[in-house]
Amino acid sequence: MQQNRHVEKHFAAPDLIRDIVIGMADGLTVPFALAAGLSGTVSNTHLVIIAGLAEIAAGSIAMGLGGYLAARTDREHYLSELAREQREIIELPDREREEVAEVLRGWAIPEESITSAVDAISRDSERWVDFMMKYELGLEEPDPKRARNSSLTIGISYIVGGIIPLSPYLFIQQPNVALIISVIVTIISLFIFGLVKGKFTGARPLKSAWQTTLIGSVAAGVAFIIAKLIS
Amino acid sequence: MQQNRHVEKHFAAPDLIRDIVIGMADGLTVPFALAAGLSGTVSNTHLVIIAGLAEIAAGSIAMGLGGYLAARTDREHYLSELAREQREIIELPDREREEVAEVLRGWAIPEESITSAVDAISRDSERWVDFMMKYELGLEEPDPKRARNSSLTIGISYIVGGIIPLSPYLFIQQPNVALIISVIVTIISLFIFGLVKGKFTGARPLKSAWQTTLIGSVAAGVAFIIAKLIS
Repeated sequence: MQQNRHVEKHFAAPDLIRDIVIGMADGLTVPFALAAGLSGTVSNTHLVIIAGLAEIAAGSIAMGLGGYLAARTDREHYLSELAREQREIIELPDREREEVAEVLRGWAIPEESITSAVDAISRDSERWVDFMMKYELGLEEPDPKRARNSSLTIGISYIVGGIIPLSPYLFIQQPNVALIISVIVTIISLFIFGLVKGKFTGARPLKSAWQTTLIGSVAAGVAFIIAKLIS
Repeated sequence: MQQNRHVEKHFAAPDLIRDIVIGMADGLTVPFALAAGLSGTVSNTHLVIIAGLAEIAAGSIAMGLGGYLAARTDREHYLSELAREQREIIELPDREREEVAEVLRGWAIPEESITSAVDAISRDSERWVDFMMKYELGLEEPDPKRARNSSLTIGISYIVGGIIPLSPYLFIQQPNVALIISVIVTIISLFIFGLVKGKFTGARPLKSAWQTTLIGSVAAGVAFIIAKLIS
């Protein structure tokens, strides 16, 4: 059982899957809702396609580029804190030793073991800085390549997700008919996506499936009503 | 200096500010880009307003409701893991003690201090379970009220952010004129928002300001070009 849990934990969220889930969840939902909202107010599907594609472009750039720049800022923050810690263990070693002891006390390490533990940690300056970064500041080193790949995956997943609800409008001229097909296709997609997502994130798949479907349906329903009311 | 940093860290990201930033960043960007994209292809602003409001509804629901349901799932996951740990320290105490020792070894606690530290931690069953949850599984107890408030704040911030780029279209009939006003108003808003965000998140305010402005401008520019190309 113990063994099972550890295997499960390890398997629970590969970064690639996580990024696909993040991008596709929003991609399936927002363009779907926008297209549904517009369908009730326009006479042909051309405008739904224009608005839908504009939204997909905007959403994927906001998520992808936004995520990339945020990750770059995180990395700069990490490196500047690292340089500071490296300076401080040389300039203020006693204070930094005391900070290690504080962290250990926070973990309920008994007082009589603290001095020897602090000695062991501060013997090696690289390990010492590592310890401070991870446990005093709670910072892990961000991987720069990972930030780029992650943003790209999120952006592309948003596009793929968004194309699904939009595709019926490409082939069908009457907005009402296209809307019905789009609703059927997207609800099925959201449900399957939720099942797969639940499987990978460790949540119960059926619950994840109905939640994902609910979010998309509520968003589309409200967008439809709002568009009808003001058109 | 040390003191400064700690004060700064403490002040860096209050939850409320974090939620407002998350919601408003997307709210200022995506409806702005969608409205800009549509402005090049429609003869009056009515349709821009319908699409914009439908997008704001969809985006705020996807972010707000999506965030709320994800937080609820996290909490259920936390509670089921908690119940499992509580069972395991009774049913498999030796294995759980060994797991505490493993965590301590991972922190470079010297071997001679480990037994006494494990004794101290496992003496009190509540502290023991706490230790396992936090340091073996890396789980913090999620606050249910916080999840609800957070989702509401993110959703409302998205709406407030989205209303800004859309507002010129409410008062001006010609899409081209409304677009110019919307671009000016939104670029200024993105810049100010980026400055404030930088101040609160600890990034350099000017850098944060131009990044936020860049994301919004690129998204709007690409949406405009795509809409023009297919209209």
